[in-house]
Amino acid sequence: MQTRLYPSTIYLSAPEMIRLVQRKGLSACIAGVADRIEREFLRWNDFDKSARVASHSDVGVIELMPIADAEQFAFKYVNGHPGNHRHGLPTVMAFGVLADVRTGAPRFLSELTLTTAIRTAAMSAVAARRLARPDSRSMALIGNGAQSEFQALAFRDLVGIRELRLFDTDAAASAKLAANLDGQGFQIRVCGSTAEAVRGADIVTTVTADKTNATILTPDMIEPGMHVNAVGGDCPGKTELHRGVLDKASVFVEFEPQSRIEGEIQQMPADFAATEFWQVLGGHRPGRLDAAEVTVFDSVGFALEDFAALAFMRETAEALGLGEILDLMPETADPKDLFGVLRAKGRSETATEARDAAMHAVA
Amino acid sequence: MQTRLYPSTIYLSAPEMIRLVQRKGLSACIAGVADRIEREFLRWNDFDKSARVASHSDVGVIELMPIADAEQFAFKYVNGHPGNHRHGLPTVMAFGVLADVRTGAPRFLSELTLTTAIRTAAMSAVAARRLARPDSRSMALIGNGAQSEFQALAFRDLVGIRELRLFDTDAAASAKLAANLDGQGFQIRVCGSTAEAVRGADIVTTVTADKTNATILTPDMIEPGMHVNAVGGDCPGKTELHRGVLDKASVFVEFEPQSRIEGEIQQMPADFAATEFWQVLGGHRPGRLDAAEVTVFDSVGFALEDFAALAFMRETAEALGLGEILDLMPETADPKDLFGVLRAKGRSETATEARDAAMHAVA
Repeated sequence: MQTRLYPSTIYLSAPEMIRLVQRKGLSACIAGVADRIEREFLRWNDFDKSARVASHSDVGVIELMPIADAEQFAFKYVNGHPGNHRHGLPTVMAFGVLADVRTGAPRFLSELTLTTAIRTAAMSAVAARRLARPDSRSMALIGNGAQSEFQALAFRDLVGIRELRLFDTDAAASAKLAANLDGQGFQIRVCGSTAEAVRGADIVTTVTADKTNATILTPDMIEPGMHVNAVGGDCPGKTELHRGVLDKASVFVEFEPQSRIEGEIQQMPADFAATEFWQVLGGHRPGRLDAAEVTVFDSVGFALEDFAALAFMRETAEALGLGEILDLMPETADPKDLFGVLRAKGRSETATEARDAAMHAVA
Repeated sequence: MQTRLYPSTIYLSAPEMIRLVQRKGLSACIAGVADRIEREFLRWNDFDKSARVASHSDVGVIELMPIADAEQFAFKYVNGHPGNHRHGLPTVMAFGVLADVRTGAPRFLSELTLTTAIRTAAMSAVAARRLARPDSRSMALIGNGAQSEFQALAFRDLVGIRELRLFDTDAAASAKLAANLDGQGFQIRVCGSTAEAVRGADIVTTVTADKTNATILTPDMIEPGMHVNAVGGDCPGKTELHRGVLDKASVFVEFEPQSRIEGEIQQMPADFAATEFWQVLGGHRPGRLDAAEVTVFDSVGFALEDFAALAFMRETAEALGLGEILDLMPETADPKDLFGVLRAKGRSETATEARDAAMHAVA
């Protein structure tokens, strides 16, 4: 009988995460992650931050996103492959880990595909709550793929959006989104173009997938007082806004060193003004100045959002009794005797028997 | 009944990896990983390489090590916490992933704690086979912790080492190593100091854990013709060799940009000569020039070694029928309908029922 010498990793699979969200409720998860994001962003300087590490190929990108405070290290593995739907796969897939900084032991491994959609929507809504006009009720939603329902619900719950104008180059995607949101308290209009969807909207959310320098939004579409939530442009060569949109707006980013590489502002000179959003949240810098200003949240997705989401999901899984134990690390009776784990198990062992077993194992 | 739309992740837990090594044999695993490392190092320019990303704290470091070729992306999570034995934990713990570059889907998740000891030993032996004198038979092993048995066996099998001189500041560690290697074909002497262990040795392996600028080896200990396999110095502020040792040696590294930050050569000027080992392996640059030369393999551990080890373990697990399926990613009937995974499962669903279930889930 072996004693468990240290805590194993708690694992939350995709089916378990679905159960978690079903039982907690999607709105409660979005609100919980949003609260957690605000709390973590308010202690911005406690974190060891770096731009994520990206590995690009012709068809997509795979990224690792690490971050740590004095207690916990977190990272997310995430891909972006716009053509994945042709293989029956999501554009974005992810998983992540929380580990103890004190020992390096990974304590929590979780799916983050569903969670990324939740945390991205939560981050967008947290930003819009500070940057959009407080009386915003209508939102254009450009790009009606996997993340769009989550954006719609986050903006309904946290910002007060009641009217949606949908556009996607794939009409089936818009139909799917409209069907999924039926009965959720929205007035929905499916539009024939981005310009039609954007016209008169208080908030414009772009969440498209193409890995190109697209110009989903052009300066002529932008009206005074609009807030643009630019989510889809998130790596070098993948943007959604015409640079003229940025020129006429106040631009807010998550983590400036990463956004200069990956965000819409990659199109702009290095000294183009961009405010880190935590400064607005903490009251160090102003957000929106007046009702006529155009604001842009140039979101690329930052590791701190995943840190917050992982922490929320870990706590919620614990509260709901979800998750299983993963034996990701070998148990060693003596940590300096890793070789000893190769001794045969399952029987009482004298020192000699153990050594014999080890000899056999390495023969 | 749901159809599995894409391959899940194969998971090799620590207990399963122990089974794999027991069934395949440790020597066969070391040899297999060594072969694979050579194959991958010979196609060095096929890889998208970067220095690993490290998050340092007062007590240790947590690192992410990504690498990719055109087909596969790999990364390793690994920590280094010299004080971990006080918590009953290994100094180094690790796990890693192989993913498809074409889709970003993670295909193989594996423990890498045991595997790291195997691949580090394999890499050391692969390098020594090219850099040490061919008639090398004796090795000093300084640092007798978790990795030391693996180093000893790799050097026995791949280099021909038959005589070991052990030293560790913890006498119990040396006693453990000597006991574990009893009957393995070595002549073993436990020594009272590093100097005693090193004297007359053909090869000197340093594999200590302290996160300090230590001077385990000083210039006076170094004899003509020695090969130094410096394994333990592997992050900023963590070195094992006095710089005078480097001054009198030909120094070989894995990936120069990373070694300049983490290796023994962090102590030297930026233009200090260091040869990337793949150049020697490929015949582009000379290795050892003569029997009197002192050679140093300044090893820090590079992602390509883990790429090779993951590939070997994946193939071996498949051949032996080991590993289990992990549902790390949600299955979506329509990849643009991630929201759809929140519909209740377990019963036949009409479109209306499905929508009702989704509404319930988000209420």
